[in-house]
Amino acid sequence: MATVLITGSTSGIGLGIAEHFAKAGYNVVFNGLEDNGAEIAANVAKEHGVQTMFSNANMLDAEQIKQMIDEATRKFGVIDVLINNAGIQFVAPIDEFPAAKWNAIIGINLSSAFHTSQAVWEGMKNQKFGRIINIASAHGLRASEFKSAYVAAKHGIVGLTKVLGLEGAPYNITANAICPGYVKTPLVEKQIADQAKTHKMSEGEVVEKVMLKKQAVKDFVSIETLAEMTLLLASKHATAFTGTAIPIDGGWTAQ
Amino acid sequence: MATVLITGSTSGIGLGIAEHFAKAGYNVVFNGLEDNGAEIAANVAKEHGVQTMFSNANMLDAEQIKQMIDEATRKFGVIDVLINNAGIQFVAPIDEFPAAKWNAIIGINLSSAFHTSQAVWEGMKNQKFGRIINIASAHGLRASEFKSAYVAAKHGIVGLTKVLGLEGAPYNITANAICPGYVKTPLVEKQIADQAKTHKMSEGEVVEKVMLKKQAVKDFVSIETLAEMTLLLASKHATAFTGTAIPIDGGWTAQ
Amino acid sequence: MATVLITGSTSGIGLGIAEHFAKAGYNVVFNGLEDNGAEIAANVAKEHGVQTMFSNANMLDAEQIKQMIDEATRKFGVIDVLINNAGIQFVAPIDEFPAAKWNAIIGINLSSAFHTSQAVWEGMKNQKFGRIINIASAHGLRASEFKSAYVAAKHGIVGLTKVLGLEGAPYNITANAICPGYVKTPLVEKQIADQAKTHKMSEGEVVEKVMLKKQAVKDFVSIETLAEMTLLLASKHATAFTGTAIPIDGGWTAQ
Amino acid sequence: MATVLITGSTSGIGLGIAEHFAKAGYNVVFNGLEDNGAEIAANVAKEHGVQTMFSNANMLDAEQIKQMIDEATRKFGVIDVLINNAGIQFVAPIDEFPAAKWNAIIGINLSSAFHTSQAVWEGMKNQKFGRIINIASAHGLRASEFKSAYVAAKHGIVGLTKVLGLEGAPYNITANAICPGYVKTPLVEKQIADQAKTHKMSEGEVVEKVMLKKQAVKDFVSIETLAEMTLLLASKHATAFTGTAIPIDGGWTAQ
Repeated sequence: MATVLITGSTSGIGLGIAEHFAKAGYNVVFNGLEDNGAEIAANVAKEHGVQTMFSNANMLDAEQIKQMIDEATRKFGVIDVLINNAGIQFVAPIDEFPAAKWNAIIGINLSSAFHTSQAVWEGMKNQKFGRIINIASAHGLRASEFKSAYVAAKHGIVGLTKVLGLEGAPYNITANAICPGYVKTPLVEKQIADQAKTHKMSEGEVVEKVMLKKQAVKDFVSIETLAEMTLLLASKHATAFTGTAIPIDGGWTAQ
Repeated sequence: MATVLITGSTSGIGLGIAEHFAKAGYNVVFNGLEDNGAEIAANVAKEHGVQTMFSNANMLDAEQIKQMIDEATRKFGVIDVLINNAGIQFVAPIDEFPAAKWNAIIGINLSSAFHTSQAVWEGMKNQKFGRIINIASAHGLRASEFKSAYVAAKHGIVGLTKVLGLEGAPYNITANAICPGYVKTPLVEKQIADQAKTHKMSEGEVVEKVMLKKQAVKDFVSIETLAEMTLLLASKHATAFTGTAIPIDGGWTAQ
Repeated sequence: MATVLITGSTSGIGLGIAEHFAKAGYNVVFNGLEDNGAEIAANVAKEHGVQTMFSNANMLDAEQIKQMIDEATRKFGVIDVLINNAGIQFVAPIDEFPAAKWNAIIGINLSSAFHTSQAVWEGMKNQKFGRIINIASAHGLRASEFKSAYVAAKHGIVGLTKVLGLEGAPYNITANAICPGYVKTPLVEKQIADQAKTHKMSEGEVVEKVMLKKQAVKDFVSIETLAEMTLLLASKHATAFTGTAIPIDGGWTAQ
Repeated sequence: MATVLITGSTSGIGLGIAEHFAKAGYNVVFNGLEDNGAEIAANVAKEHGVQTMFSNANMLDAEQIKQMIDEATRKFGVIDVLINNAGIQFVAPIDEFPAAKWNAIIGINLSSAFHTSQAVWEGMKNQKFGRIINIASAHGLRASEFKSAYVAAKHGIVGLTKVLGLEGAPYNITANAICPGYVKTPLVEKQIADQAKTHKMSEGEVVEKVMLKKQAVKDFVSIETLAEMTLLLASKHATAFTGTAIPIDGGWTAQ
């Protein structure tokens, strides 16, 4: 039975993907800051008849990341699939952007994926199988105003993905990034509120005129499609699918 | 029961994808130049318990393309999924490249997708569902020497895909391009032979040093992964997956 | 004294670039459909003290293209710099787009650059110096609705540019594409009128809400910047600047 | 008289660009770790008849960066052109890559540009003119093995560039990234040595087979072309040239 570790998986996109992997028979290592993370993990285990565990490792702390993966490996053996999904957001004009927020976003949205990838690498290399999937963003390919740190971090993780894809090639380790447009998650709901303040608009206007303005398709991206894409990338035969950044973004990056 | 039309589907990638769609329960409209196209279509129908038909419409002839789609629509109703896969190749330095070959490649690899898309559009628009999937190439994103026409045509179809994605958005018509690296098909086998001549190498050297030189993963791309990606793009819930160019190329475009 | 040949140079961007090259001391081969093309060429010669000639070769006709370059070569020697700038536009939804317009746009905006490049290649190769600069468009990198042919052709020429860059490398022939946003030219003025009809808006609204909607910078791109970029690419020391597609687009492709 | 501040300008690309700006009449703020930085600055001032100053601000220290820009602003007035060029490199497989090196590369090659941009922003905004030019790398667009931190940082700065371009649009502040291939600098000479060790090759083989392997043009990129491109981006009329990542890479990213 294969094992997937998903950072930031106690809510939003991460939780949605975790449920699909559990349904597909994977053991799941949950990670997140929610107080009831262990409960969430236990519920998914029960519902889908798989094993799960939960770690509240802080994605800003390389040591905690290493411990999480050591613990998961002791419990389940090699992590077969690593999904770097943890992320935070902060929105402000460049001249008002707090350096502490810049550092936190670079740390959580970018550097944590370096630490997790490093920690799972040897196991994947030895078993000649590994799949690393980074949940980036359309902001890994394009910019928006007031999101300097987020856009830099997401572009950065797209770059890291390419390197991991190249370095993994001799060992059947693939690495790919998925670049969603807007998915309706707690993070996006917070963004709607934040941008309403920044742009001095109602939340309804933000959704229509700001959030989905850049998408040609005026619907949020479905978790189901993200999860299916992730499962495809994780599959055994997807050996040549590597180093990519796949937009699922309602036509945002096409225009 | 949904219907898929696949151009250039009597051999190679097109045939492989056709078989996966048949297996998934789609009726399949075959197209190609093989003499035994009707037989191929009949065999797939029998094996997978679906309906099929065959058209030998010439992809250089807009009128024949229109007739093929009219005939398919009369037989199966609206084409739900259109896969533009027909393609030819020719390899020569720019100063020796025959204009007739340029025109044929632009016609078959690019303009035919304009004609097919145009012909299926009204049906898709009226039923508020359509999926157009263009089998482009890593050469839709990057170049190689001696392939001026192929690279231009494949970049062109990536551009067309984006336009179709944008125009289709209000009607739940999505359009995406898949950009494979090297898949072991008759076309690629011919390329191996052609490039051996151009580069004055043995065919074995061409595979290792020329063909897969740009891929980090030293295996051909599997039809299975291409087919699964195509099925995912064709699915009902993939509404926000549009206007993209998805490399499946062993890390070629990552480096 | 170096020679530049610029297709579509009797008006708009082409004429603007021609004037800057003349000012910089290049002999200029003009091409275009304007009745007074010869007069335009003569005026530029007089103003800047260079030699010019004019050809009304039709960019849809490979034979006329070849003759134009033969004639120019007899007059000035090898064409040192080739600027493919000729282009037409047509705007219509995919299901109403006339096949004849598709063919004309692919022919003029894409295939003509294949024919011109082919015709100048031997001379450039022999003298170990050549610069090919293709005036593509932001539409060589991104799409807009209702412009299927234009976007396909412009993506195609970006692809061709890359091939020419690679093939030219051993001979100090570079090839680059420039991808402008909106420049105020007769073509754009016509587009404003066309889109006003398509979108049922006033022309003023088209400029603000449609034309420059995708640019963050709400000004048209200046001819001066395009010309300087082109001169830089044409320069002797720009040997490693090749195979690129350079957006000058007011931030369009950044978002 | 306009002022340019260039980080990492006491050697390599930065120094080369500084000399071209001085020659063009700019006052230059030098920055770097060389012991004789002040002397370098003084020599350039003398040679080109401009004013210069030198700061040894550490690019890892946000406070020192702020002080450098405060000091420069007191001396010369608003910084008109900011060129973020400081960078370090480290090469190791992902599983052996020291976390401290990751942090240093992200800090110097990416975060420092956030701090400098933030510090110059208000002055540029108030005077309605500013030009930010980030010297990224072909590694801002593509990956190489063993360079996880460098590729992530350079992709990150390409993302930051786009955000700055968008946010600057209302104030005539443009931001662009230049993405060179290999330029013969002390950093590259060190890379040749490092990679020789990593790949177990002679240095000569590294240049031919590793370093310029990805370039079609087998020459290093000239400082002169980089400097001209930078001067063009810095010019008054280049108002619509923003948010781009311009490869000057011998055809690397084209293939």
